[in-house]
Amino acid sequence: MKYPPALTQLIRELGRLPGIGPKSAQRLAFHLFNRPDDEVRGLAEALLNAKGSLRQCEVCFNITDSERCAVCTDAQREQSIICVVEEPADLLAIERSGEYDGLYHVLHGSLSPMNGVGPDQLTIQPLLTRLKDVEEVILATATTVEGEATAMYLARMLGEMTVPTSRIAYGLPVGGDLEYADEVTLGRAISNRRRL
Amino acid sequence: MKYPPALTQLIRELGRLPGIGPKSAQRLAFHLFNRPDDEVRGLAEALLNAKGSLRQCEVCFNITDSERCAVCTDAQREQSIICVVEEPADLLAIERSGEYDGLYHVLHGSLSPMNGVGPDQLTIQPLLTRLKDVEEVILATATTVEGEATAMYLARMLGEMTVPTSRIAYGLPVGGDLEYADEVTLGRAISNRRRL
Repeated sequence: MKYPPALTQLIRELGRLPGIGPKSAQRLAFHLFNRPDDEVRGLAEALLNAKGSLRQCEVCFNITDSERCAVCTDAQREQSIICVVEEPADLLAIERSGEYDGLYHVLHGSLSPMNGVGPDQLTIQPLLTRLKDVEEVILATATTVEGEATAMYLARMLGEMTVPTSRIAYGLPVGGDLEYADEVTLGRAISNRRRL
Repeated sequence: MKYPPALTQLIRELGRLPGIGPKSAQRLAFHLFNRPDDEVRGLAEALLNAKGSLRQCEVCFNITDSERCAVCTDAQREQSIICVVEEPADLLAIERSGEYDGLYHVLHGSLSPMNGVGPDQLTIQPLLTRLKDVEEVILATATTVEGEATAMYLARMLGEMTVPTSRIAYGLPVGGDLEYADEVTLGRAISNRRRL
């Protein structure tokens, strides 16, 4: 016995999502089959609606539904600091911390020559046009190999333009147990220790 | 900063899927934001199309896009055996094994009084109307507590109607290592041993 084509198609489309393999896609499809019509229609409409209305902010490349995002249009925020992140989700994570009140710049990725991502594939050029009157650029790319390389690349460029640049701190996560920290993180936490 | 409403809505809808928490829903939403328009439209259309065209087979309650499913309309199959499964996905799993050539009956769940699922919530009544000329009913519900209870309930009912009934075998999975098998399974594998 074979699946009806509409089911096969749904499983294939669901299986294209990241982190969803063929088994999960099948499970999701059967789940959706058992849900009320309007719930499934709600999901389909949310997909179309999001895809139709969302775009990148023309200044910082954050996700927005208008020309400029909610951060860029907020005159209350500190206009002289730019925090550079890889993805919009990173921006949101920093917002949730409540520790930052400046502007952002979303690179939409990190340098990864292996995957064909060079400086031109990221929003680095638009970042360089934003640096007038900027007093600090915080490099908040990930602490992965690619994130580090991106931060180093930007630090060199910004250094040449004499823009003060900083990097987010390495160390133990809050609530973290030394026993379970990896050696590299622990080494960084020790070498970056702060006097109390 | 808050998400644009279209994004919030998409994250909420994705988060209603089983096994997808708020973090995964956010990750999926950002992923979809970065995909081409037609890929997202493809997913939305597959959802609507599947929901619009798929239904339950009027005989065995398998998923189908016509009145009777591909198994029930296949005259080549053995018509005198019915294999009872909990979900359409279970039916497909048995089909993939290639060991079975009879008919099916999909219960769409298992007895679970704790969750308000009694015999009337499953397709047990329609099963009982199918038993004329049936020589065997194989109970292939899961080997979970609920699946066992469902099999026992059906076995008693079918026994009263003097319909020959069998239960799928317990034992070690093929390729399984004794060392890693749980005690209950291993105990069943020993007590259900077969003479060679």
